[in-house]
Amino acid sequence: MAGVVVASMLVPQAMAYALLAELPVHVGLYAGLLPVAVYALLGSSRFLSVGPVAMVSLLVASGIGPIANGDISLAVQLAITLALMVGVIQLAMGLLRAGFLVNFLSHPVLSGFTSAAALVIGASQLKHILGVTVPRTEQPYELFVVLCEKLAETHVATVGFGALAIAALLSVPRFLPRVLRRLGASEDAVAAWSRSGPLVVVFAGTLVAWLFGTDSGVSTVGRIPAGLPKFVLPTLNFSNVSALLPTAVVISLVGFMESFAVAQALASKRRQRVDADRELVALGFANLSSSVIGGYPVTGGFSRSVVNFQAGARTGLASLVAAAFMACTLLFLTPLITFLPKSVLAAIILVAVASLIDFRKLAHIARYSRADGACWIATFVGVFILGIEWGVVVGALSSVVFFLWRTSRPHVAVVGRVGTTEHYRNVLRHDVTVQEGILAIRVDESLYFANVRGLEERLLEAISDDPTIRQVLLICSGINFIDATGLESLESCLTCLEDAGASLNLAEVKGPVSDRLAQAGFLDRLGHDHLFLSTHEAMSKLARIVPERLF
Amino acid sequence: MAGVVVASMLVPQAMAYALLAELPVHVGLYAGLLPVAVYALLGSSRFLSVGPVAMVSLLVASGIGPIANGDISLAVQLAITLALMVGVIQLAMGLLRAGFLVNFLSHPVLSGFTSAAALVIGASQLKHILGVTVPRTEQPYELFVVLCEKLAETHVATVGFGALAIAALLSVPRFLPRVLRRLGASEDAVAAWSRSGPLVVVFAGTLVAWLFGTDSGVSTVGRIPAGLPKFVLPTLNFSNVSALLPTAVVISLVGFMESFAVAQALASKRRQRVDADRELVALGFANLSSSVIGGYPVTGGFSRSVVNFQAGARTGLASLVAAAFMACTLLFLTPLITFLPKSVLAAIILVAVASLIDFRKLAHIARYSRADGACWIATFVGVFILGIEWGVVVGALSSVVFFLWRTSRPHVAVVGRVGTTEHYRNVLRHDVTVQEGILAIRVDESLYFANVRGLEERLLEAISDDPTIRQVLLICSGINFIDATGLESLESCLTCLEDAGASLNLAEVKGPVSDRLAQAGFLDRLGHDHLFLSTHEAMSKLARIVPERLF
Repeated sequence: MAGVVVASMLVPQAMAYALLAELPVHVGLYAGLLPVAVYALLGSSRFLSVGPVAMVSLLVASGIGPIANGDISLAVQLAITLALMVGVIQLAMGLLRAGFLVNFLSHPVLSGFTSAAALVIGASQLKHILGVTVPRTEQPYELFVVLCEKLAETHVATVGFGALAIAALLSVPRFLPRVLRRLGASEDAVAAWSRSGPLVVVFAGTLVAWLFGTDSGVSTVGRIPAGLPKFVLPTLNFSNVSALLPTAVVISLVGFMESFAVAQALASKRRQRVDADRELVALGFANLSSSVIGGYPVTGGFSRSVVNFQAGARTGLASLVAAAFMACTLLFLTPLITFLPKSVLAAIILVAVASLIDFRKLAHIARYSRADGACWIATFVGVFILGIEWGVVVGALSSVVFFLWRTSRPHVAVVGRVGTTEHYRNVLRHDVTVQEGILAIRVDESLYFANVRGLEERLLEAISDDPTIRQVLLICSGINFIDATGLESLESCLTCLEDAGASLNLAEVKGPVSDRLAQAGFLDRLGHDHLFLSTHEAMSKLARIVPERLF
Repeated sequence: MAGVVVASMLVPQAMAYALLAELPVHVGLYAGLLPVAVYALLGSSRFLSVGPVAMVSLLVASGIGPIANGDISLAVQLAITLALMVGVIQLAMGLLRAGFLVNFLSHPVLSGFTSAAALVIGASQLKHILGVTVPRTEQPYELFVVLCEKLAETHVATVGFGALAIAALLSVPRFLPRVLRRLGASEDAVAAWSRSGPLVVVFAGTLVAWLFGTDSGVSTVGRIPAGLPKFVLPTLNFSNVSALLPTAVVISLVGFMESFAVAQALASKRRQRVDADRELVALGFANLSSSVIGGYPVTGGFSRSVVNFQAGARTGLASLVAAAFMACTLLFLTPLITFLPKSVLAAIILVAVASLIDFRKLAHIARYSRADGACWIATFVGVFILGIEWGVVVGALSSVVFFLWRTSRPHVAVVGRVGTTEHYRNVLRHDVTVQEGILAIRVDESLYFANVRGLEERLLEAISDDPTIRQVLLICSGINFIDATGLESLESCLTCLEDAGASLNLAEVKGPVSDRLAQAGFLDRLGHDHLFLSTHEAMSKLARIVPERLF
């Protein structure tokens, strides 16, 4: 049952996403055949529906567009090569256990990327809706300019098909559930069947276009090869492979990321596990299988997987059923597809991606953290100006830079005692008492090269500003590790403080940090009587020493 | 007095470092004149002796060598341009408060860079000691190959000068102190005068070379312009400026770094402060002044500054005295310098940099942290294979990558109760008891994009492995901040745990972290009864809930 529901989404989506990838629709159908079955047999998720998805299709279009330059048979060759490359990269990443690399794509970067890509996808489909031909543009922002110029050439009948399809796609999920509920269908079945909009508009669109005939001027999908695809070995060409490499890397990462996020979310609902490296291997084989039957890169899709889960899939069997239905489509339905208007497929894409444009997410992220908001914007703008692959790179780099920036200026507080308690808090925020001659300072960050010299400066500044200081206490509760630069800086602080007639003390040093400091000989150099378990213990003991030295 | 001692080092060093920079010696003398005085008037350190230094001279040679290609007058022009560029960059960095940028050069990177540069400097001077001419090489490692090929052409008299100079330079600091002490000199004076080796060998070398005459075949410094330099405005040429830019940036950073480290170390001994941004401005003006009188890039030198301090300098007056002595040298001693053998200057450089090659430092660093040791090696190897500027870049990037790597795999411990105390420790390291149905887990790192998905996986794995878990407690004592990806992941964990029939709880959340979570609405979503001050409080309350739900 779940397999049938998924197939009803897979067939129209596979054709629509092939159109988005600027490929003939049968390439999408092939990509929705074998990879679906291969993943079902190898993957660790029981619900994931692998096949053509929007984001990957856009990346395919952007990667092969400049090379194929309008030559459809070359574009198909390149798409097959790209699937092979993505398969090899994902397989290698899985075997090298490099799945962690996707963690460097932060949430704001992915969100900004998704919104920008959805806008670019939408814009790229407007030409099919409007029935105009536009030249290929280098960067996404140019596409909007070109579209505005072509607005006058709009083809009315094509727009009609597109507008009706959009209206139908928006109405089905609104009205079908009520009808189904009145018929007494279960909630899961209602949720699943209300996703059948794309199949409905594909059938209706094809029927109407067939009735009107080809003289209406509406651009249709045209004749596609009938029957199942043949196995082929992709032909490789070094210059194409190196030109496609950046696209292949981005597809491998973004595709895996999207797929893994869905798989994990669905698995956890049943207390099941998905393994990142095994997922990479399974997706790698799925892409290789797509390549050998003449398909293009695939990954696990969000909407189909959720429907698969809701429709009651329990194992990969559902996906095998969906693949079988796809095979039947290829065997028996290809003559019908000839009459399917492209604007109907474009409408399916537009409706699918519209909800991905999410500026409220930006507002939410920016309110929480301005740096993360800036990453979102950097990625979004990067996609439009530099193109989708470099947009991701700019976003990933910006999030690393903001992280370094943040950790390089840690929160450092001079603390004092709260009343007569054993608690010590920031002197600037709380009403606390400080002991003359003692400087107690807490650092809320690990000590590493980018922040440790700032801390050193701060300590030396403090003792030069207040000549009465004889004891400096560094509270290490927020320090998770100290790198070699940190160690060197601590040693230099120790010497500088000694030269200035003051002592360094450490309190609340974590076990692993203290082990390493001991091993490096720093604790011997510091003196074990300058190391304290708690801040209170340190302050009590130091208070007893200070007055003697001072007066 | 300190000024005289420093001048006795400055004059020979200025000539030697000009030779190292592949420039005529008078360019070094000019760089040791006005910049010394300008820094004395503007700088925040009272002891720093600014002028030509070895590392910057090597960078100058490497930057202008490929462009000048043996044309000495062009090389001088380029050196003047470079001083101008470094001046502008440092001034801009100072005014933009960008001094923190040098913090991204970690200790292992600087140490590896210093050792590699010292080796390259030594190798570059061997041609002067051996009296052979070698062609310019592209990368440092090729220099060693070329030198071996030229070994047969060694010029005996030149080697003689060089060897005697090295012997003298090594002996003076060993024997002069004893003599001085017997004469009753103070310890500071002994330490200062024992640095007069370079001046002694320069005088002796010049005298001997003058006696032998020019027919010995020993390469000498040759005629240099007499008198004080004239003010000139550097002529700029766009292609040269853009070719020199990487070198100018590296000199600005490395030069400032070296200078600031010395200034800070000396200032702290007197409880004085040096301000990074003011230092940048002062060094910027020193470089601009070097440029307008025909000098080359300068910075604060380690050895001369330490001698200045030991010889009793209290203010910038000492540096003004040193500059005055340099002026006298230019006015009266230039005819003598003509006879100075280059091999004597090369000997001064060799002895000065020999102690900078420090493999024990590598061993020390690698023992403390393997990642930091790898950064040292990456920088060292990078310098030899890619050249000195790119070596620094490789090193800086490698330390950022290792930092990301380290923070992306934080220490995560499942904890249990130690006996009947309120302490909770790692179940793998300590003998503790755990409560069935509760998973208490401590993360020793801030939650950010690179590590938070790993944590999410770990949590979901744990609850899928143990179906009895009803309560998950996240102990946040090591979490200094949570970025937007972290927040999103916590929200997704919360949903996943709820779907799986378990609750999420947080304990020991730091003030600033908790403020932000509250503001983002996460604490409301979590439920305030799932937020605890201490681990013990959380465990006691959760233990009371769990059994009811379980049985």
